[in-house]
Amino acid sequence: MIRIEFDRGSAIAVGLMSGTSLDGVDAAVVRIEGCGLSAKAELLHARSFPYGDALRERLKDLCVPERSRVDDICGMNALLAEMFAEAARQAVSEAGLSMQDVDFASSHGQTIWHIPEHGPGERDLESRDPARFRSTLQIGDLSVLSKRLGVPVVGDFRPGDMAAGGQGAPLAPYGDLILFRDEKRGRLLQNIGGIGNCTALPAGAEPEDVFAFDTGPGNMVIDQAAWLLSGGKMTYDDGGAWASSGTPCEALVDKMLEHPYFRQAPPKSTGREVFGKAYTQAFVELAREGFRLGDADIVASATLFTARSIAESCRNFVFPRCRIDEVIVSGGGARNAELMRMLALLLPEQRVCSSNAFGVDDEAKEAVIFALLGNDFLRGVPNHLPSATGASVATVLGKLALP
Amino acid sequence: MIRIEFDRGSAIAVGLMSGTSLDGVDAAVVRIEGCGLSAKAELLHARSFPYGDALRERLKDLCVPERSRVDDICGMNALLAEMFAEAARQAVSEAGLSMQDVDFASSHGQTIWHIPEHGPGERDLESRDPARFRSTLQIGDLSVLSKRLGVPVVGDFRPGDMAAGGQGAPLAPYGDLILFRDEKRGRLLQNIGGIGNCTALPAGAEPEDVFAFDTGPGNMVIDQAAWLLSGGKMTYDDGGAWASSGTPCEALVDKMLEHPYFRQAPPKSTGREVFGKAYTQAFVELAREGFRLGDADIVASATLFTARSIAESCRNFVFPRCRIDEVIVSGGGARNAELMRMLALLLPEQRVCSSNAFGVDDEAKEAVIFALLGNDFLRGVPNHLPSATGASVATVLGKLALP
Ligand SMILES: Nc1ncnc2c1ncn2[C@@H]1O[C@H](COP(=O)(O)OP(=O)(O)O)[C@@H](O)[C@H]1O
Ligand SMILES: Nc1ncnc2c1ncn2[C@@H]1O[C@H](COP(=O)(O)OP(=O)(O)O)[C@@H](O)[C@H]1O
Ligand SMILES: [Mg+2]
Ligand SMILES: [Mg+2]
Repeated sequence: MIRIEFDRGSAIAVGLMSGTSLDGVDAAVVRIEGCGLSAKAELLHARSFPYGDALRERLKDLCVPERSRVDDICGMNALLAEMFAEAARQAVSEAGLSMQDVDFASSHGQTIWHIPEHGPGERDLESRDPARFRSTLQIGDLSVLSKRLGVPVVGDFRPGDMAAGGQGAPLAPYGDLILFRDEKRGRLLQNIGGIGNCTALPAGAEPEDVFAFDTGPGNMVIDQAAWLLSGGKMTYDDGGAWASSGTPCEALVDKMLEHPYFRQAPPKSTGREVFGKAYTQAFVELAREGFRLGDADIVASATLFTARSIAESCRNFVFPRCRIDEVIVSGGGARNAELMRMLALLLPEQRVCSSNAFGVDDEAKEAVIFALLGNDFLRGVPNHLPSATGASVATVLGKLALP
Repeated sequence: MIRIEFDRGSAIAVGLMSGTSLDGVDAAVVRIEGCGLSAKAELLHARSFPYGDALRERLKDLCVPERSRVDDICGMNALLAEMFAEAARQAVSEAGLSMQDVDFASSHGQTIWHIPEHGPGERDLESRDPARFRSTLQIGDLSVLSKRLGVPVVGDFRPGDMAAGGQGAPLAPYGDLILFRDEKRGRLLQNIGGIGNCTALPAGAEPEDVFAFDTGPGNMVIDQAAWLLSGGKMTYDDGGAWASSGTPCEALVDKMLEHPYFRQAPPKSTGREVFGKAYTQAFVELAREGFRLGDADIVASATLFTARSIAESCRNFVFPRCRIDEVIVSGGGARNAELMRMLALLLPEQRVCSSNAFGVDDEAKEAVIFALLGNDFLRGVPNHLPSATGASVATVLGKLALP
């Protein structure tokens, strides 16, 4: 009995994505035609707005239980929304548009915690340990964003998927299907953010044919190695220049790939808990002491490690299930030329390219996808793939705030 | 260009309110006719669902920066929503209805932090201290609630008011105006929760005539005194029985009323920071050592303290601005017969009664009001009073999740 009316065939939306790398917020101005699986998206403008170092450090603290505080979380929820609003406004103006031209915004929010599974114990609700209760927390308040932008804002998509029995992730495969599905060619969407994750789209895929999983570290180990070896001066290896000046050590990389995560069958997901600081610290020590590598060779090895973990996950878990003709890379990792070169060499039978080649800016792909999810909310259309998240039913994810 | 369609003249809603006393969640099943200031609400059923002690203690920890943690906040946001869903279902079934009869639910959420004003310093966004950034945080996830109930759920109203320049509180005066406005009689709505707060509705009031402020402690000092003096056995003085067995000490109460808060002119608000544990501890010590009072006399004095703080705020700040004929009490304090008796004695020119006398269950008044706010969201109608919150403009507060 409640219906949201959307009185135009096409909409102009701003999608906002802030990933787990805590590198900043990506804004995409998109024209969307239709909705659901038959939606068409045209990217009008994309732009990444990096967080400053001070803000990134504050955000990191919010993600550590022992250092997090309710007052910081409360304030950051509003503060981040103000920043998202500035980013959205700037992106819209760079697109040559004004906020009057925009129908809505749609924001993923910044994840600060995620509990994919209940802890053990089937006790009554009241006595459950909240820290082990299935849930997910994204900040960047939608009301603040909406009042600042003067347009409706949709966001906070993950809790709905979890309430429907899913893991709250991955949500991107739904958008990958809309943007990249092809009747004839099998495509693998490989996102390389902090973590690497892929969506397999068999040729002519139906929603239930899509599968997706985390391939392992994306830029996380490279970033951390660059940071350690530069004495904190570099937070990533720009363009992969440092890696390309060294020689990767295959024996070391073989050893890294013995990690049990790479043998585990999908669906599977991983994060900073597994491939974070401590992991890279151990990797760098082993490279130095066990293999006597110099700094450039270590960065090159970290880069090959990511490339091979992706190629091997293709060979072990994707190619046996479906033919893949194209590997389409997105995320900040697509900007690492050395990583892209290695990946192309390791997957000679596939065309390996950035999503730029398909008119979807590699850094903006997820922002475009969240614009699609918001568009579906406003039209009352389910906007996730239960086959990817494990939800028991497809429902309308998200929350809406009005200006 | 986005319009929410609500295709019935009247709606059945469940309102959910969980106050700062952390005593539990109040559910109200309400039939609402129309919207905005001309809405009519009929309470079909009301019920309070107390939190267990273990849950209350966990919630208290979430509200203390030093003890709060992001993982607990993340999980409690979902866990509390599951509890709210059970409460709503139970209330609906007790009303003799099924969830199919319900159009929507509307939830205030549990406030775990509130920062009414920016800290000093007009620095750029990035370098602001989040703990001193205007914001407010309510938990009890709307998506979880909506998926569980199978109806749209509106909630999380306060951040929108803050984004519009208000303090995010009080929101109840908007509902007080709808429910209790009278052409001929001036009315004061006195809510006695943890804190006492009042809404003045002059006869024939227009929105801009309404004013509201916190009168001081409501049950907070009484509760804490009962807890201290009973060695932790009582969390409140049931019915005011303990107080009625003692004799209040006027001299002690005179002294307590010298606190600067009571002289401060409205608008003003207060909370546990001012009248919390430490305050009551000092009060009990003074009563014992300075005034040689026994336990019952101390509880009686705490009760008179609340009653007089309310009566004096009427005399100092309300009666000089408008005639008040009726003082309508709501909140748990209306169940304290001794407090009500004292209040009636102190305000002999006014009719002092519980909101029950107006068909609005005293413990459910705020739950009814939040049902009204949700109803307005769904019809795109502004749902707060800038004159009460300080917002610069009246807008549509809240967020919507779909089932
Ligand atoms: N020019 C570049 N050269 C190499 N790596 C880059 C470049 N730009 C971004 N990156 C990498 O991409 C990461 C950010 O990628 P992103 O897709 O935003 O990840 P997330 O979704 O985890 O936030 C950076 O941390 C960095 O490692
Ligand atoms: N039967 C009663 N007798 C006396 N006091 C009561 C009774 N029932 C509730 N209360 C008081 O009301 C408080 C809860 O009031 P409530 O309006 O829910 O406050 P809040 O909005 O702060 O949660 C309890 O903490 C208690 O002090
Ligand atoms: Mg990022
Ligand atoms: Mg209460």
